[in-house]
Amino acid sequence: MNIALLGFGVVGRGVYDLTLDRSDINVKYVVCLEDVQLPGVTVTRNYNEILADESVDTVVEAMGGLHPAWDFVKAAIEAGKNVVTSNKAMACTFYDELLPLVQEKNVLFRCTAAVGGGIGWLSELGRVRRCETVLSVGGIMNGTCNYILDNMTRLGLDYDVALKQAQNLGYAEANPSTDVDGIDTWHKVILSSNVAFGVSLDKQSVPVSGISKIKACDVAAFKAHGYTCKLISTGKRTDSGFSAYVQPTLCPADALEAHIPMNFNLITFEGAAAGRQSLYGQGAGRYPTAYNVVQDLCDLLLGNGFYAPCEGSVAARNNEQLRFYVRGASDAWLESVTAEIWDEGIVTAPVAVDEMHAWLKNHPDAFMAAIR
Amino acid sequence: MNIALLGFGVVGRGVYDLTLDRSDINVKYVVCLEDVQLPGVTVTRNYNEILADESVDTVVEAMGGLHPAWDFVKAAIEAGKNVVTSNKAMACTFYDELLPLVQEKNVLFRCTAAVGGGIGWLSELGRVRRCETVLSVGGIMNGTCNYILDNMTRLGLDYDVALKQAQNLGYAEANPSTDVDGIDTWHKVILSSNVAFGVSLDKQSVPVSGISKIKACDVAAFKAHGYTCKLISTGKRTDSGFSAYVQPTLCPADALEAHIPMNFNLITFEGAAAGRQSLYGQGAGRYPTAYNVVQDLCDLLLGNGFYAPCEGSVAARNNEQLRFYVRGASDAWLESVTAEIWDEGIVTAPVAVDEMHAWLKNHPDAFMAAIR
Repeated sequence: MNIALLGFGVVGRGVYDLTLDRSDINVKYVVCLEDVQLPGVTVTRNYNEILADESVDTVVEAMGGLHPAWDFVKAAIEAGKNVVTSNKAMACTFYDELLPLVQEKNVLFRCTAAVGGGIGWLSELGRVRRCETVLSVGGIMNGTCNYILDNMTRLGLDYDVALKQAQNLGYAEANPSTDVDGIDTWHKVILSSNVAFGVSLDKQSVPVSGISKIKACDVAAFKAHGYTCKLISTGKRTDSGFSAYVQPTLCPADALEAHIPMNFNLITFEGAAAGRQSLYGQGAGRYPTAYNVVQDLCDLLLGNGFYAPCEGSVAARNNEQLRFYVRGASDAWLESVTAEIWDEGIVTAPVAVDEMHAWLKNHPDAFMAAIR
Repeated sequence: MNIALLGFGVVGRGVYDLTLDRSDINVKYVVCLEDVQLPGVTVTRNYNEILADESVDTVVEAMGGLHPAWDFVKAAIEAGKNVVTSNKAMACTFYDELLPLVQEKNVLFRCTAAVGGGIGWLSELGRVRRCETVLSVGGIMNGTCNYILDNMTRLGLDYDVALKQAQNLGYAEANPSTDVDGIDTWHKVILSSNVAFGVSLDKQSVPVSGISKIKACDVAAFKAHGYTCKLISTGKRTDSGFSAYVQPTLCPADALEAHIPMNFNLITFEGAAAGRQSLYGQGAGRYPTAYNVVQDLCDLLLGNGFYAPCEGSVAARNNEQLRFYVRGASDAWLESVTAEIWDEGIVTAPVAVDEMHAWLKNHPDAFMAAIR
């Protein structure tokens, strides 16, 4: 297998390192803007050279972002090349174009490293689907948020301090919005739901709220009531179709989620026969992520492509009634559903998830967390 | 695929139920002593009939125990049939005969349900091995022990009471020895190590101690020192080869193992690139276990056989120095290594695992737990 590696940053360099000693995977090209010298590898900025080289059967996209990543991936597929990527934003955003194109051009596409880094989540989900009805997927899918929330809970830090620490240690980016606003988790749970249920979820129907408004006083109130706050994603079958959302969630002490430390992930599925199962590990990092890219390349060598067919688009409907903690804003509606006072916040009576998220959109300074 | 199902108990019945609607897997025979009627299935006690039927390509062994399970499996392989089993005792005990025979007869053999019930542990381990050096395997592999220890820890119960509860709820058998003495876990960690490292571990070199001597006073002492006791298995690469053992282990509150509830399992591997990852779920039960048998049948349909080649036999050497809690016996050696007193027990200075287990063999009434 001759591959072209697009991007030579954290993941790309890792893939290069992990394939160096393999006889079955040969890095023929690296496309990057940096001036690197790699023995036996053509380092180029001219992507057309790669598209024209018929000996390159597989493109590994490790650039991140939507453009030019998607343009390059699309061109590769149109040129009949297989693609492996760790890019959840791209795979999720262009899902409806990507999957039909892969099928039309009869190429192989995998993106296991896109959810959970080195955790074999999507590949296991593909295995589960072979003989099982998946009832739900979800969990803790973002190490940055978990690191911040874990430090706030263990050390009583305020959000800004915990974020700064995470940034200093490289667990959070200078602009942390994609992580702390839940967008990264949102991409991951949509991708996971699509694979688990064989559909393409309408992204706009999947509400997301993040952790950037949480304060030390919230965490103290949660502790006093026996809860730990985590950013939890949910995708599940319902009586009327599918439900999916991302929100801070208060987990009781007997939930495994409450005990996930540092930047670790815990991703769970429930199957009709297999029951509830979880995968636990660090969801990011050069070598774990590159490891799953190499695993995907091994699967390509065996002829294994995408995890699940897509049987059509559906909108999520989130009618599930949950109790929510809310602090930082109020109005007549919130007062009308208030059931308890927790220190500076309130706890609602059961409210539909979609209704709560719609309210939050109009009160962007408020912090909200569902209660399990 | 036409299969013969050996045994129609918990697992066998589950496999029958889960394959009922499948067009690719047809149960042609059921071998059992009970008088059951199954439409379209030949129920027989005459195993030779199955061996002689060339349309039967696969035998599913779901009888449990060593004999006649192994004799039936051996005869099936010799007759050129593929085999799937959930029988860890058999797969582990006859590993050295089984694998060469499978290779010689060019058939497929899988046993994913043998470790972790419905958890895709062995199949994931097989995937990991494709592009990764596995450094260690292990964890909580026995739901019965975890149920008993969890109830002792949460409720302060004594061992006999917790065992009785587990028996009443069907989590422990009338004769619980295989579970509580660690034999079940021992089979599972040997099998896991064999797959992870591509070897056949000399079983006698893998020491095991169980939980049947634990008392409420031990658990109270562990709690007072911030520890939770779990039955933990370990298999790992060392500088000089491999190490493997099963022993009660005191886990600190920040270890995920300390928070595994009820009859759940948490099975962990560490890979050179992939890092530390765990799989969590209920390690037993009719449908989870049967589900993984059906997964193995799907793999057979794809031509996927055993998870790893075996490159030869090795003895485990357990020179690792650990601190141990010991209660219930003493002698001059134990006094010479005693570093602390914990209530009715003592805590040793670091002692080699093999040395501690050798001592315990001569003091069968003592309870011992390693400290992490």
